[in-house]
Amino acid sequence: MIVLEELGLDYETVYLNLSTNEIKDEKYTKYNPNGRIPTLVDHKNNDFVVWELGAIISYVTEKYGPTRTISFEKFEDKMHMLQWLFFQASGQGPYYGQASWFMLFASEKIPSAIVRYQKEIIRILGVLESVLSKQRWLVGEKFSAADVSFITWNHAAFRALVKDFEGFNLEKDFPSVNRWHNEMLSRPAVGKVFVKWQAW
Amino acid sequence: MIVLEELGLDYETVYLNLSTNEIKDEKYTKYNPNGRIPTLVDHKNNDFVVWELGAIISYVTEKYGPTRTISFEKFEDKMHMLQWLFFQASGQGPYYGQASWFMLFASEKIPSAIVRYQKEIIRILGVLESVLSKQRWLVGEKFSAADVSFITWNHAAFRALVKDFEGFNLEKDFPSVNRWHNEMLSRPAVGKVFVKWQAW
Repeated sequence: MIVLEELGLDYETVYLNLSTNEIKDEKYTKYNPNGRIPTLVDHKNNDFVVWELGAIISYVTEKYGPTRTISFEKFEDKMHMLQWLFFQASGQGPYYGQASWFMLFASEKIPSAIVRYQKEIIRILGVLESVLSKQRWLVGEKFSAADVSFITWNHAAFRALVKDFEGFNLEKDFPSVNRWHNEMLSRPAVGKVFVKWQAW
Repeated sequence: MIVLEELGLDYETVYLNLSTNEIKDEKYTKYNPNGRIPTLVDHKNNDFVVWELGAIISYVTEKYGPTRTISFEKFEDKMHMLQWLFFQASGQGPYYGQASWFMLFASEKIPSAIVRYQKEIIRILGVLESVLSKQRWLVGEKFSAADVSFITWNHAAFRALVKDFEGFNLEKDFPSVNRWHNEMLSRPAVGKVFVKWQAW
């Protein structure tokens, strides 16, 4: 949604009821066999369907970002944006997601599993800090979809997942991540979407 | 390595000693701040560096696969290849990896965590089966890098991670995945790389 807002595109959101497992219903899995969110259906391209956040972001920025406002023209920059989108997908998402599972949803409380994934969150923040302490944005010296792909899970981490973890201090220990995160939060597109999510 | 072999490219492999944590050494993290494998350094493109498997595969197939032997020319097919690469990165890799962690490396044996990730492997195989029962390959009716990206972790699952899980039967329960996996195993590039890995 943030990427669509940044590009000024029209879109309709269809929310699924996770508590009734609508995401595993054939009405949805015919679009996305993985039965997870999100999925994009592009009504302006013969109802072309694509799922997986990183692929959706790549599709939308390549197809509808001709001025490259939040993506790149140069091949090597494109590949670096993709690299960070994959790091978000393989590193941030799964580990933050497992922390969330063991902290909030698992019927059995397993301290060692919770700590394992909280430590992974801290590790991921360290990777981002090591890069963002040397440059303002992840790729090509400008804000891009690579940066914003991290905002949702990081927000969840700061507000909940590592908030009370062993003296976690965002401003002190990850000052560049903090600066980067706040700079993104001040963007109109981000504010607009976060307001829609209300819970945030 | 399989993708590089499929494309007939020359490459040099540099293995890191995981037991001495060489992947977290600055000699490596200057290339890959995440301190994980793999990383590609392209000596034919000013030592261009890219990490994350899905980004490496995208880079190599876009730059050196001009005949599109294992990738695609059409934009929508490219995006679907990317979708499956992201599913490999966000779905297969992390869950199979966590199963591997809790089964083989964690000092504390936690049955509920092991079962959680074995069930996720079965779920992922189900997603692949639902697609491969209707088509021979994941994208565009031909073998591509999207398919082969799944082979390594699936092989590990069949040989170890779900081998003894609750009556797991690959041939019976996932016949299309089995057919697809074996068809890939018979490719010379796959055989060559698996022999190099010896342990397989």
